Amino acid sequence: MCQLLGTSCNRPTQIYFLWSGFQRRGGHTDTHSDGWGLSFFEGNSVRLFMDENSCCNSSLAQWVKCCPFKSNIIMAHIRRATEGTVELSNTHPFVRELWGRNWVFAHNGTLKNYYPEHKRFFPIGDTDSERAFCWIMDQLAERFPSAKPNALPDKNELLEVLLELTTEVSKYGVFNYILSYGEFLIARCASHLHYTLRQAPFGVIKLLDDNQEIDLGVVLDDVETQMAVIATQPLTNEHWLRIQPGVLMAFENGKIIHTIQGDPGATPGVASVVGK
Amino acid sequence: MCQLLGTSCNRPTQIYFLWSGFQRRGGHTDTHSDGWGLSFFEGNSVRLFMDENSCCNSSLAQWVKCCPFKSNIIMAHIRRATEGTVELSNTHPFVRELWGRNWVFAHNGTLKNYYPEHKRFFPIGDTDSERAFCWIMDQLAERFPSAKPNALPDKNELLEVLLELTTEVSKYGVFNYILSYGEFLIARCASHLHYTLRQAPFGVIKLLDDNQEIDLGVVLDDVETQMAVIATQPLTNEHWLRIQPGVLMAFENGKIIHTIQGDPGATPGVASVVGK
Repeated sequence: MCQLLGTSCNRPTQIYFLWSGFQRRGGHTDTHSDGWGLSFFEGNSVRLFMDENSCCNSSLAQWVKCCPFKSNIIMAHIRRATEGTVELSNTHPFVRELWGRNWVFAHNGTLKNYYPEHKRFFPIGDTDSERAFCWIMDQLAERFPSAKPNALPDKNELLEVLLELTTEVSKYGVFNYILSYGEFLIARCASHLHYTLRQAPFGVIKLLDDNQEIDLGVVLDDVETQMAVIATQPLTNEHWLRIQPGVLMAFENGKIIHTIQGDPGATPGVASVVGK
Repeated sequence: MCQLLGTSCNRPTQIYFLWSGFQRRGGHTDTHSDGWGLSFFEGNSVRLFMDENSCCNSSLAQWVKCCPFKSNIIMAHIRRATEGTVELSNTHPFVRELWGRNWVFAHNGTLKNYYPEHKRFFPIGDTDSERAFCWIMDQLAERFPSAKPNALPDKNELLEVLLELTTEVSKYGVFNYILSYGEFLIARCASHLHYTLRQAPFGVIKLLDDNQEIDLGVVLDDVETQMAVIATQPLTNEHWLRIQPGVLMAFENGKIIHTIQGDPGATPGVASVVGK
């Protein structure tokens, strides 16, 4: 299966440590070697790095590990292709502009025979994931016809609509995803998704995929820092909690701002097919 | 003023040599140090590297100079801000999805008091350039309502509509731009834009901004290679031709496929204000 990684923090942070572990799952400690993507929100803009090659061997993935970029919301994906060829256009995260915001989306799971109608947002590649994302964007545009850059939908209302749309997509299979337009990070669990919350007092933590440890107190550099890390599978020896199937969570400034229980979706038989 | 760079080639090429010269104009041999962007089409997908900092000092700009990526259509921009703050969201090229294609746009010039109505495509930053791009995308979506991924508009018709839209935008100021959705590269001159065509027999060429030379025969590696390079100002000692004001050209596989004379736009007084 593919894997997701997302961070929400109340101050811009770098990704070095988490990326060091996550990157190794892209062909070294795990089999997700069919592409990778890493995005940094910076205001309403997004830096997106991606490649269709194995993350653990990518010179670009290596470069971004030590890059100077910091962000309050970072999102990443490593891919093991189950639907769609191994090429750049099928690499997550996907990005679309809606209401003057960049919407960034990455998916883990497989949607079977899922070919929704597209009206305004069309897929560029040929994955079930991008089809689902474009369909959700289409639906949001239709549900909030008067929304625009200085008049975004109410957050609660937006999350309720997203949950409803997610339930619809989930009829076709496993739909774990992370999504953001830069203000908060949404994480929806169908089968596998975990999170950990970091706040003072910080301690020394270790990666599970590499022999590395850091002192969070030094790295996060401020006792006021609050950070949430969301990942398909735990990346460190911190205390991770499993998100229950069907739950949609929203994280803002490193804290949980919403937890909504929705339909878990997908039949048990389908739920075991986790391949995107 | 800002500067534009675009290449069209009948085979994927790297950007090392041209970028070496162009990068130096981003704060070293010239004053365009308020951000830069570099995009590579790869099929319908786009790799976009950008930064709001000076190109000549950017570690990312340095990395991409030697990066392994190749493309038939490469587009770049170095910015000297005249409208919009120096931040990532104001960095060209801008990208939007329309009809399942990535549309990539970069502008050189200043549009005065230009605040068009936006319907579907909204600016993320606050430049006149992105406002113009979003307006053009809106108009294209309206003019070709039945267009979709497997039914793109006829190329000639698309270029005629673009020329008409360009004339409209040009009433507000200087509108040199490069634009592509991955099939061909459009270059529109308002005041300053040049091109050179490369084909066998290839010779040794030199950069104008650095003490570097290469043997094109070695680099392009095939006598069948045809390449067009478009730039605000010539980058090498090759034979460059100036595009006349008002002319919109289209380059495909390294060759000119269309040259259309349109309204030069902007009054002579405005045309001398070249500041984006």
